[in-house]
Amino acid sequence: MSTSNATYKVQGMTCGHCVNSVATEIRRIDGVTAVEVDLATGTVIVSSSGPIEDDTVRAAVDEAGYEVVT
Amino acid sequence: MSTSNATYKVQGMTCGHCVNSVATEIRRIDGVTAVEVDLATGTVIVSSSGPIEDDTVRAAVDEAGYEVVT
Repeated sequence: MSTSNATYKVQGMTCGHCVNSVATEIRRIDGVTAVEVDLATGTVIVSSSGPIEDDTVRAAVDEAGYEVVT
Repeated sequence: MSTSNATYKVQGMTCGHCVNSVATEIRRIDGVTAVEVDLATGTVIVSSSGPIEDDTVRAAVDEAGYEVVT
């Protein structure tokens, strides 16, 4: 099985609760197999079984109350 | 019914999730009727139907993962 990885920068996360909120929403996306979040840099790495639309990830982050900036 | 009010300063809260965690733990204390948290200053005001031991509030805040500093 091939794996896709995409990296995003998320603005506004200030603590572990924020990290959990973002990761939880992204994990709900169909095909997502893993989510890594670095709080200090706002970097979010999304692994999936196939490519995922950026807009889908943006919507999930928005749902958690944060914003993808790049 | 008389109401007691006590004010604490809590360190480490960075966002609304932190505020909710602290408020939720303090509300579990027997006799607590209301909890107000100001994120910017870390001020927590606890209203209760009678006096509550500071140590009880400290333990609740600790349980939430934060610390009462004054």
